[in-house]
Amino acid sequence: MIEVEVKAHAPEDQDALVKKLVKIGAKRVGEEYQEDVYFNAPHRDFAQTDEALRIRKVQQGDSEDLFITYKGAKMDKVSKTRKEVEVGVEDSAKVADIFQSLSFRPVATVRKNRTIYNLNDLVITLDQVQGVGSFVEIEKEIEEGEDTREALDEIFTTYSQIGIEKGFERRSYLELMELP
Amino acid sequence: MIEVEVKAHAPEDQDALVKKLVKIGAKRVGEEYQEDVYFNAPHRDFAQTDEALRIRKVQQGDSEDLFITYKGAKMDKVSKTRKEVEVGVEDSAKVADIFQSLSFRPVATVRKNRTIYNLNDLVITLDQVQGVGSFVEIEKEIEEGEDTREALDEIFTTYSQIGIEKGFERRSYLELMELP
Repeated sequence: MIEVEVKAHAPEDQDALVKKLVKIGAKRVGEEYQEDVYFNAPHRDFAQTDEALRIRKVQQGDSEDLFITYKGAKMDKVSKTRKEVEVGVEDSAKVADIFQSLSFRPVATVRKNRTIYNLNDLVITLDQVQGVGSFVEIEKEIEEGEDTREALDEIFTTYSQIGIEKGFERRSYLELMELP
Repeated sequence: MIEVEVKAHAPEDQDALVKKLVKIGAKRVGEEYQEDVYFNAPHRDFAQTDEALRIRKVQQGDSEDLFITYKGAKMDKVSKTRKEVEVGVEDSAKVADIFQSLSFRPVATVRKNRTIYNLNDLVITLDQVQGVGSFVEIEKEIEEGEDTREALDEIFTTYSQIGIEKGFERRSYLELMELP
């Protein structure tokens, strides 16, 4: 599965943004807290190869879900399109122990509150990232090998409809957090 | 958790062995089919470091469970005592995809039918390993830092009670499979 995704800094007036989202038909589907522990590899530097490996903890109300996620290098110059593989796991401490036994090391933890909207086949998220700021992400999943241009058009059209024409951000929260 | 484990080649008369197990009080608790895909690392050779990383599929009747398992190097000269971390996962193909994206490569698949007995705090398994042979394993889990000698005494006493005094095997099924 390929995740075609474009992120932008959120405008200051987020209430107005939410109203615009509702106006174009986006449906609020949930709110969750995410805690991502990122690992780097012993045999290559993910900061150089533009890959990511993380353990994600998702809390929604009383339920907690755990995932391993791998992200490959970004595949074009404008979006964050990349290979993404995510799999549910039963215990995050054991996965961290396995990663560290394999000489992968934890490098940073990203914590955020995420509100999720659906609009047709797009997922739109509003993120409040601790220590980094507020962002909008619009994402569409396509099959490997499928053309990304159509998805990108749809994403940028939607950004335009909610009044966001600039402030796009290709760097990950991890990269933004690590800036001096 | 540390797995103190000793394996032996099974005697030819396995019916007699099962009778001895029952006689000393071992309780048959289950039977399952296991398929283990072993991976090697890009940054060190697990055949040299004596580590193992695998994805295990366990089928019991209609149910299937999936695990990632890491095993550290053996910690003494007589047993197979080693660090072991195992965690349940939702999808084995996705885990394999993540491992391969990280440049870990699948090196072998070990398939076996396992019958499991409990005797006090010991787990005794009879394994029929495809292409390798039949084996008995006696295992006890202890906490990290705990002394392994007591567990080993208990294991070898049990072997003696079921008439197995030789044919002990420290090599893994993976190693036995890879012998020329």
